[in-house]
Amino acid sequence: MSDLTIWTLDWVPQGPRGFVRDLRLAWACEEAGLAYAVRTIPFEDRETNHLDRQPFGQVPFLDDDGLEIFESGAGLLHLARQSEALMPADPRGAAETLQWTIAALNSIETVSVPWWFLTISGDADNGLTGWLEQRLGHLERVLGEREWLAAGRFTVADLLMADVLRVPLVRAFGDRPATEAYVSRTTQRPAFRKAHADQLARFEAADRKRAGDGSA
Amino acid sequence: MSDLTIWTLDWVPQGPRGFVRDLRLAWACEEAGLAYAVRTIPFEDRETNHLDRQPFGQVPFLDDDGLEIFESGAGLLHLARQSEALMPADPRGAAETLQWTIAALNSIETVSVPWWFLTISGDADNGLTGWLEQRLGHLERVLGEREWLAAGRFTVADLLMADVLRVPLVRAFGDRPATEAYVSRTTQRPAFRKAHADQLARFEAADRKRAGDGSA
Repeated sequence: MSDLTIWTLDWVPQGPRGFVRDLRLAWACEEAGLAYAVRTIPFEDRETNHLDRQPFGQVPFLDDDGLEIFESGAGLLHLARQSEALMPADPRGAAETLQWTIAALNSIETVSVPWWFLTISGDADNGLTGWLEQRLGHLERVLGEREWLAAGRFTVADLLMADVLRVPLVRAFGDRPATEAYVSRTTQRPAFRKAHADQLARFEAADRKRAGDGSA
Repeated sequence: MSDLTIWTLDWVPQGPRGFVRDLRLAWACEEAGLAYAVRTIPFEDRETNHLDRQPFGQVPFLDDDGLEIFESGAGLLHLARQSEALMPADPRGAAETLQWTIAALNSIETVSVPWWFLTISGDADNGLTGWLEQRLGHLERVLGEREWLAAGRFTVADLLMADVLRVPLVRAFGDRPATEAYVSRTTQRPAFRKAHADQLARFEAADRKRAGDGSA
């Protein structure tokens, strides 16, 4: 039995709430029935205060019984090896899950995150728009033909892909009914709803603590 | 013993030669001493002629004894499980290798590839420049303190990270001596040189074949 701790920030502004990537790891643990704790590092000086544990200053990172792993994608694949709920054990199912997990990180997110970043920076009609349209169009075709990406069942690849696709600006980009149905059915899973509600509640508790500190 | 085939394009223009990602898989096979064949699909109609095998129309994909895997990152992790030359077998070494492999794909390439794309599209001072500078700066600090990223030795994470960093525009971006030394020592490895030379030779042979076809 693993002793799992998910490390994230102790507070974030409203904007990213519900989207901080500790949710990916918590969601995976919920799907797999793995017990876990959440611990935090300070939001202030977040870009430099934990570089010794995460060299890019990001969250989350996972502590599995003293073994620390950064990159949410790596944490997900690490957890997936501990539970068939996340990744089938047979070689073909495992390979399909691996390829679609990497596709979410490197074929979709490599375009969607910079596009999203440029868009919220005020450059809405940026040079990545056509590329994003193409990638999401390919994915829409795939999702029109199957319910889940790999192995004919929900896997960690769907967890990650849905998390990439549910970003509001990405979700609202173009008309992609199969993708919308996929994001909708994936985020209706009890494990997602639990992890999502827990993250919101944690940051709300941090608000109350801050307000308390302020009035003390 | 695996029966490995790396699928790529039969021809590309001069620009991407030496950088088509089949090289990543061939390099890994060379490091691991795994026998492999290279087979090709036509460059013409490359965006649509193999969507049934690679849903984003990209190359490479790997055929391991009938099991097809797309995404070069997934192919590398699949190969890494077959050889300790690519990834240590102990849990800590394997986790470090996994996290740095994903970091190359999702913390560096997610910024460097769109930055590079915008730059060659004519937008040299684009909105991703500061972000790239920050990420490469963090990596420079890491590479100033160690020779290899994971497990105190060369792993598939170095293979991938060096391949991400050796893109000419990225390599020329800023003054990062530790990173430059890292890219230099990694691309001097015989396995890289073999895979690189083989790719160039294959496309040159395709040029000759095209020229021959033209004069026939």
